[in-house]
Amino acid sequence: MKKVLFATTALVFSAGIAAAEVSVGGDGRMGVVYNGSDWNFSSRIRVSFTASGTTDGGLEFGGSVRADQATAATNGTAASVYISGAFGKLSMGDVVGASEALFGDFYEVGYTDLSSMGGYSNDILYLTGDNGGNVGANVAPSAVTTTGTGTTAVTTAVSGLNTGPNLLYTGTFGAFSVAASMSDGKAGSVDGSQEYALAGAYTFGNYTVGLGYEYLDLKVYDAGGNAYTAKADMITLAGVAQFGNTSVKAGIAHRGKDVDQDWYGIGASSVFGATTVGGYVQYLDDKDNNTDVTWYGLGAEYDLGGGASIKGGVADNDISGSDMVADLGVKFSF
Amino acid sequence: MKKVLFATTALVFSAGIAAAEVSVGGDGRMGVVYNGSDWNFSSRIRVSFTASGTTDGGLEFGGSVRADQATAATNGTAASVYISGAFGKLSMGDVVGASEALFGDFYEVGYTDLSSMGGYSNDILYLTGDNGGNVGANVAPSAVTTTGTGTTAVTTAVSGLNTGPNLLYTGTFGAFSVAASMSDGKAGSVDGSQEYALAGAYTFGNYTVGLGYEYLDLKVYDAGGNAYTAKADMITLAGVAQFGNTSVKAGIAHRGKDVDQDWYGIGASSVFGATTVGGYVQYLDDKDNNTDVTWYGLGAEYDLGGGASIKGGVADNDISGSDMVADLGVKFSF
Amino acid sequence: MKKVLFATTALVFSAGIAAAEVSVGGDGRMGVVYNGSDWNFSSRIRVSFTASGTTDGGLEFGGSVRADQATAATNGTAASVYISGAFGKLSMGDVVGASEALFGDFYEVGYTDLSSMGGYSNDILYLTGDNGGNVGANVAPSAVTTTGTGTTAVTTAVSGLNTGPNLLYTGTFGAFSVAASMSDGKAGSVDGSQEYALAGAYTFGNYTVGLGYEYLDLKVYDAGGNAYTAKADMITLAGVAQFGNTSVKAGIAHRGKDVDQDWYGIGASSVFGATTVGGYVQYLDDKDNNTDVTWYGLGAEYDLGGGASIKGGVADNDISGSDMVADLGVKFSF
Repeated sequence: MKKVLFATTALVFSAGIAAAEVSVGGDGRMGVVYNGSDWNFSSRIRVSFTASGTTDGGLEFGGSVRADQATAATNGTAASVYISGAFGKLSMGDVVGASEALFGDFYEVGYTDLSSMGGYSNDILYLTGDNGGNVGANVAPSAVTTTGTGTTAVTTAVSGLNTGPNLLYTGTFGAFSVAASMSDGKAGSVDGSQEYALAGAYTFGNYTVGLGYEYLDLKVYDAGGNAYTAKADMITLAGVAQFGNTSVKAGIAHRGKDVDQDWYGIGASSVFGATTVGGYVQYLDDKDNNTDVTWYGLGAEYDLGGGASIKGGVADNDISGSDMVADLGVKFSF
Repeated sequence: MKKVLFATTALVFSAGIAAAEVSVGGDGRMGVVYNGSDWNFSSRIRVSFTASGTTDGGLEFGGSVRADQATAATNGTAASVYISGAFGKLSMGDVVGASEALFGDFYEVGYTDLSSMGGYSNDILYLTGDNGGNVGANVAPSAVTTTGTGTTAVTTAVSGLNTGPNLLYTGTFGAFSVAASMSDGKAGSVDGSQEYALAGAYTFGNYTVGLGYEYLDLKVYDAGGNAYTAKADMITLAGVAQFGNTSVKAGIAHRGKDVDQDWYGIGASSVFGATTVGGYVQYLDDKDNNTDVTWYGLGAEYDLGGGASIKGGVADNDISGSDMVADLGVKFSF
Repeated sequence: MKKVLFATTALVFSAGIAAAEVSVGGDGRMGVVYNGSDWNFSSRIRVSFTASGTTDGGLEFGGSVRADQATAATNGTAASVYISGAFGKLSMGDVVGASEALFGDFYEVGYTDLSSMGGYSNDILYLTGDNGGNVGANVAPSAVTTTGTGTTAVTTAVSGLNTGPNLLYTGTFGAFSVAASMSDGKAGSVDGSQEYALAGAYTFGNYTVGLGYEYLDLKVYDAGGNAYTAKADMITLAGVAQFGNTSVKAGIAHRGKDVDQDWYGIGASSVFGATTVGGYVQYLDDKDNNTDVTWYGLGAEYDLGGGASIKGGVADNDISGSDMVADLGVKFSF
């Protein structure tokens, strides 16, 4: 026993009592994608790990990570871990903001979700969480350009965007669901963007309505190390209704402070036996830049059973020079 | 139920019914390698995931991916997925060409396969598939240099080589096996090299013979963005015979169009109880460049049982200044 | 059967009899870290694979690898494989040196081990193994600067440091434990640093004492390709004693040849039911550079059961301008 103790730290690969469990799953897909000019093959396979355990006191804990994000998951910029109990669930890592945690996104159109085609997809617009994805894509450039405290407009921030890990709390108490999220204001080792968000939802019968508020205190740096700051907030009102086999989700949001944007969106999906059809329409009015865009998606899938389905869809937007995209393929869930 | 639907898209890590399964395996090895001047340690461990499921209609589907290729597997340039049934098997991703799908390679010599030593290994020469590996190594430089439509010879193509995903069909109908493969002619988002291949094999008693045809329409770009085109095709005749405990495989091939190369190869392996010995000799005559090379490998392995074996081998070629390489080590299969 | 043999090399993803097994585990953590100026979130999740099997003759073999190190594990610079039996255990890959294999490290302080804060952590100083981690951090700069054979002092070696794979033997025979390790003197494909180490330990009652000797023949290159050489050795005397619920580990070491450094350290941990407290103090006197540093850490953890624990700690050193760091969080073991 003493000898084991003597050598144990160095020889044992992963110490600790492995009472918790890790299950292995994943997904795969194969098919063809029309990118606006021609059809191409598109396939992928992903493996995911879901860990879970229970403390002696009855708290649940765990986490999940994909094999292709394993490296980023070691510093909290991908995947997440959680601990949960009667108080709710506390997650840290690459988590979504409070509004997205409660309202989610629209029905995913196509077997590839068609999100790589111009960036307009079934994702609902939010301001925080998910490691700055929405921030970088939708808020930072115009906000920073118009309000930067430096002397040169920043078109691409080189650092300072929130990279996580972020903290997310979600809880359900009877008919009420609440969520709160925040970043720690650090981008790596420097001061960076800070994010806060709070959201609530109430369910009555077949209806759920919710309200979310997100706040972003942007602080980014250009290649020369000059700092630029901007503030933005976003209020989102969302609702879901279930009519028989059909689920409808709609939302309306406004982004203010140093930006001025309005967003509307509606989506629906219906299940007919093994067939599901769904789609969405979204509209974003960027008053700062006097631009607006409408985009939509429409798709269908047929469940083959056993974790396989055939799925396809089309998506388009009204941006000049942008073409309709489409895909059709097979999806696997392991 | 409605509340779950409300939140489900964002909170659930990987949706879908996980009726299909993922099994975890892998391989390891450790030993010493002689690189032509001195002996060095060489070890590795790899983990692989094999997913499989069955639809309600009886089609089988799945895929496989190694942990070290998990990232590339998310865009189809590593690993592959498939769906199969009575019609055969359709695979997409990092798949081999039709000829390689039916004819394979020679007996793998050494515990490290000794392939890193000059690139001449037990792999049989093909023209397509496997994401351009053979193309880049054996065809592109000379072909492009002599037939480029630009004004400057390209010694290293910077883009345009086929990067996948590719499509492969294989089927077996009684004594006949057939395979067909193709790329989609895209290298990332630009027009690139296009590949097609078709192969068939017939088995009678202890003998199998096969014929394969591959076609490559090469389109690559230099660092300045200039495009260079070339065409190549390859016809391969291969056969396998089983004599008691000994299996012999031989092939002959010609590459034409803008290249002019002949290839011959023969390999064999024999099993004596727990011991297996094997080897190969290959010859490539590159008439474009007036060069030819002969290379061979010879190895043996002893099965320790339980998934472990001792394996070693030597390999060499007649290129001036190239030395014999060798290795000896332990291999594990998990 | 013949047809399968014909096609098998190319179609089968991972050949071999999978009689051995792979188990999936991992660890997660979430909490807050004080970096000397403010508190930040820190979380991660890691998945690890442990493979093991037994040959027909009763030898055990296997290996372990983390998902986030899967790529490096394919060339032996991360993870390791082993074969073991009555003779002891032979490991190759990213293994520790002989001294560290027997003496290990001190009690890990904090839920993040606080090692990223200045590099002074619960790790005991060694000279070899672990792929040059200690060498690069503690020996190379001063040693190379003073003894380089080139004309310019090297402050950062660009190549030549030992990158593995390394070989480690450990064996236990009654009350005696022995370990031996070596590198192969190659850094990639060039001649590089060579390492050897030998260590032994003896256990009597509640006490274990050990002695280790490590030798480093450093050969590194600067950006211009100039070679610099230096030699260093290290002798370490270590002991562990168990008093009831308390374990105490202490060591003293001297580094000689082209360097002149003394090191002392002591650590302890005590278990009180579900609570464990532990800490360490270390001192390094670098006589070459006339500098010395003392650093310490103190931490505690409470076992929640099921693989979860609450853990926190503080660490500091007496380097001017360096601040105390601390953390507090939850750790999960899967």
